[in-house]
Amino acid sequence: MQVLYAQPTLVEDLRSAVNARLDTLVPVGHRGPQRVNEAVRYALLAPGKRIRPLLTLLAAVDFGAAVGDALDVACATEMVHTASLVLDDLPSMDDARLRRGQPTVHVQYGESTAILAAVALLNQAFATVTRAGRLPCETRLALVERLSAAIGFDGLVTGQENDLQDRGATSTVARLESLNHQKTSVLFEAALEIGARVAGAADRSIDELRQVAAHLGLAYQIADDLFDVSLATGPQSKDLLKDANKPTVVSLLGAERARERFGHHLAEALKLLPARGTGGTPLRDYIMVTFAQTRLC
Amino acid sequence: MQVLYAQPTLVEDLRSAVNARLDTLVPVGHRGPQRVNEAVRYALLAPGKRIRPLLTLLAAVDFGAAVGDALDVACATEMVHTASLVLDDLPSMDDARLRRGQPTVHVQYGESTAILAAVALLNQAFATVTRAGRLPCETRLALVERLSAAIGFDGLVTGQENDLQDRGATSTVARLESLNHQKTSVLFEAALEIGARVAGAADRSIDELRQVAAHLGLAYQIADDLFDVSLATGPQSKDLLKDANKPTVVSLLGAERARERFGHHLAEALKLLPARGTGGTPLRDYIMVTFAQTRLC
Repeated sequence: MQVLYAQPTLVEDLRSAVNARLDTLVPVGHRGPQRVNEAVRYALLAPGKRIRPLLTLLAAVDFGAAVGDALDVACATEMVHTASLVLDDLPSMDDARLRRGQPTVHVQYGESTAILAAVALLNQAFATVTRAGRLPCETRLALVERLSAAIGFDGLVTGQENDLQDRGATSTVARLESLNHQKTSVLFEAALEIGARVAGAADRSIDELRQVAAHLGLAYQIADDLFDVSLATGPQSKDLLKDANKPTVVSLLGAERARERFGHHLAEALKLLPARGTGGTPLRDYIMVTFAQTRLC
Repeated sequence: MQVLYAQPTLVEDLRSAVNARLDTLVPVGHRGPQRVNEAVRYALLAPGKRIRPLLTLLAAVDFGAAVGDALDVACATEMVHTASLVLDDLPSMDDARLRRGQPTVHVQYGESTAILAAVALLNQAFATVTRAGRLPCETRLALVERLSAAIGFDGLVTGQENDLQDRGATSTVARLESLNHQKTSVLFEAALEIGARVAGAADRSIDELRQVAAHLGLAYQIADDLFDVSLATGPQSKDLLKDANKPTVVSLLGAERARERFGHHLAEALKLLPARGTGGTPLRDYIMVTFAQTRLC
């Protein structure tokens, strides 16, 4: 597959802006107890691809908003994502010991502090959207609601519960993809929609972005599974053993057909994304580059 | 102490309204996975005194708002409180087996489902405030922020972390009361302030309510500890052993001086609460009745 390194500077600049802003939004020595504060920063500021906040920012840019208007709400999506990782890794869930190249939060700080850090992160995500002062009141309220929809009964909570309860029994690609949708696509959806709403995009465009997100989430999970399988040697950045006994699209279809399915979902997502003349848009280019790589972390 | 059963009908009516509304806000068969949905309802709808939503509703009524305007945001405070109980009871925290007269959520549904249920409850609290359509946008946004302040680095997360990390070493009444403030007063504060803000109360009144809440939280914790100590026989509604090795105001001062201190905090709270002519207000009467009893659950 041809990989276009279009506008790497823009993406790098945005990723740096996200990292810098996250650092500010959860400052050192926040008035809370140092241990939870440290654990939150440990989880949130560890090296990550920042895919969700980049989706928010690039969607905002694509639809004509200023980066600064979307930066805080973009950071909120990363807080939610990080909270979900901290929870998923817990001993009572996936019991993972390695994440983003470092010991998981509960290994480093203990289980109770990890749980409280996840709660603090979710809470900080809502606080951050609420305080995004550049946005009108109605927009902020809509984005709080959008974020809560991605987390709650129809979102990540569902995905994680189904993953824990039903995954072992999941033996069809359709059911696995429904699970992957709940675990991954819902936050991609929210991230893209939040960016588009900051820019005041039309409802029709937002419907299209939802379909883009659905395909991206499924492509992402397959790439993630392909990466796990192909990583026979070399330094590990996350705990692979935890997923060893779970069925995946790769274990059900084999690597080659899974790779085809990945290509299908990526192509469908790109087809739905508006191009600009013969070139792409920043969002389209970013997705091509990022999702064409298998090392997604 | 003289106990006034003033306006029992109003309080009972409000409690019933809260229970009925909570049931609606987290409906059976919510689209999410049944197990988390069930666990949330199990925790939230178990018999509770509903102190926090009653504080919200009575503060709202005291300052002239309609009950209906404050009902949803009152329910949100109960969701936050219930989430904090579910988390506090976890094996990695207080490891309690009994709460509100029934097995704790993790005993009944497993640890991972209990954690996800707590996350779903916190999330639903934010969603509920966001959707409280009778309130202006600015008010809803302010209340989301107020709720997040009660949960996060300056709120319940702090309280629980400090309780777990420092409680064993806490040997002065001043430090214990600071801890009790973080664990209890912060949500009382938020509950009262939220009710007052719904009614458009002045900032000065809200400052006074904060002081009321601070005293109430401390009184409440002492009463709770006195109740634990005095409960030698009879049916238990919560797990008392979990607190057996923790220092409390009662273990530091003895029951009699603790009872005096309880009386002091309650009197200070009542002194700050506006009376109406020679009688009380609904809020003042409720606090007198509720906090003069030791069985607070």
